[in-house]
Amino acid sequence: MAVATLEGPAVEPVPQKPEETERLVIFAWSGELDKIWPTLILATTGAAMGKETTVFFTFWGLFPLLKDQAGITGENWMQKMLSMMNRGGTEHLKLSKMNFAGAGKAMMMRLAKEHNVASPHQLMALAQELGVKLVPCQMTMDLMGLKREDLIDGLEEPAGATTALAEAQGAITLFI
Amino acid sequence: MAVATLEGPAVEPVPQKPEETERLVIFAWSGELDKIWPTLILATTGAAMGKETTVFFTFWGLFPLLKDQAGITGENWMQKMLSMMNRGGTEHLKLSKMNFAGAGKAMMMRLAKEHNVASPHQLMALAQELGVKLVPCQMTMDLMGLKREDLIDGLEEPAGATTALAEAQGAITLFI
Amino acid sequence: MAVATLEGPAVEPVPQKPEETERLVIFAWSGELDKIWPTLILATTGAAMGKETTVFFTFWGLFPLLKDQAGITGENWMQKMLSMMNRGGTEHLKLSKMNFAGAGKAMMMRLAKEHNVASPHQLMALAQELGVKLVPCQMTMDLMGLKREDLIDGLEEPAGATTALAEAQGAITLFI
Repeated sequence: MAVATLEGPAVEPVPQKPEETERLVIFAWSGELDKIWPTLILATTGAAMGKETTVFFTFWGLFPLLKDQAGITGENWMQKMLSMMNRGGTEHLKLSKMNFAGAGKAMMMRLAKEHNVASPHQLMALAQELGVKLVPCQMTMDLMGLKREDLIDGLEEPAGATTALAEAQGAITLFI
Repeated sequence: MAVATLEGPAVEPVPQKPEETERLVIFAWSGELDKIWPTLILATTGAAMGKETTVFFTFWGLFPLLKDQAGITGENWMQKMLSMMNRGGTEHLKLSKMNFAGAGKAMMMRLAKEHNVASPHQLMALAQELGVKLVPCQMTMDLMGLKREDLIDGLEEPAGATTALAEAQGAITLFI
Repeated sequence: MAVATLEGPAVEPVPQKPEETERLVIFAWSGELDKIWPTLILATTGAAMGKETTVFFTFWGLFPLLKDQAGITGENWMQKMLSMMNRGGTEHLKLSKMNFAGAGKAMMMRLAKEHNVASPHQLMALAQELGVKLVPCQMTMDLMGLKREDLIDGLEEPAGATTALAEAQGAITLFI
């Protein structure tokens, strides 16, 4: 999201979109396994249907984009603490419910594997392959003390709420 | 949602919708009382306003569609365990917050009754009466080992993400 | 939301919106700090971009609209109890995750301040200044026993689901 400063929200230049293009814009706010899963399944399905698809990762949603070893970052203890509490990367996501010290997640992952459903890790790679635009939220990065090099490769440039809302006009919009 | 296999997301035939029809498509991801309530209130209100209304029940959202005694299903222990942890039917939903071993829910239900607000059970019946399309997610059913006969009557055929996204183009879209 | 009574959902008169106006409609269901933040950042950014912006506060989302000392309201013990469990006002919001008895929130607020990001309290004032329509849900107010004078100034008249869905047709729609 754009940095909404005390002086008011930042206004970025607004790209215009042709109305006739079918588009899907997902605001991925949650970093948990059972939320990132529908995010990526909807995004890859939308892209496979020919929709111009953007996922805007914000707040907790940024953590699945962290490099696996980027766990400890930030310039001060608060940011370090927040970063440590949220070990990044799609391999470390938890379920939002029924986590049972990881047992719920293990069950879910094993079920998914047995039923030939792609894991978030695989879906993230597939999304990049299908041309889904994966956009990290600049404001969240600033807030958490994250730099571009802390995030996985293949992402768009970090952007703010204005860019996300400009993409969203006329699109299917979901806040997940 | 469509089964997004390791080979890529499944692409189903895409029904085209006339642009001029007003439509509402809700992705009902959460099975909790305080989420299924707004889902059904918005769906029945939308239908009463003449909008073509679809609710796509996915992930935890599938549990309110279970028959009351369908609690124990699935071919293996993992699916049985997941099923047991989630007793189905709208009579057994919990609040996502302030549950207090059921007291929060009891209060809410009693308040709703006193204020003449319909219960989820009644709203589900009303939705069916008003022609709201209630669509269970095929992928979630596969993942949880649920069969069509485990679900309540009056639902549409199970479908995937492609169908849901095709309905969603040009509609009011909410992920709840 | 409209009172969906046992006789069916209430149907309010439906205002028609010109299709060409860019609009943003947020259904603010959650009262927590990390949800009200994106709600208000997106709303103020949308308004600053020239979008006609409406936030419809429903369920737990109503609590940030309570006057700070309106904590104890309601005509009976159940409503009193619900009200007390939810001390209103944007100064008392909790994070939905990692709250750590308030430490998570304190960290987040301090981080936000250091990075010059507006607080929910400031964003709420900014939203009013920018002409964002802040609409409390009539049904939730009835359910919780809240009166207009329990809520902060500068809000629109309380309204129901029909009004919210009428605004939502053709708009960017997000359920947060």
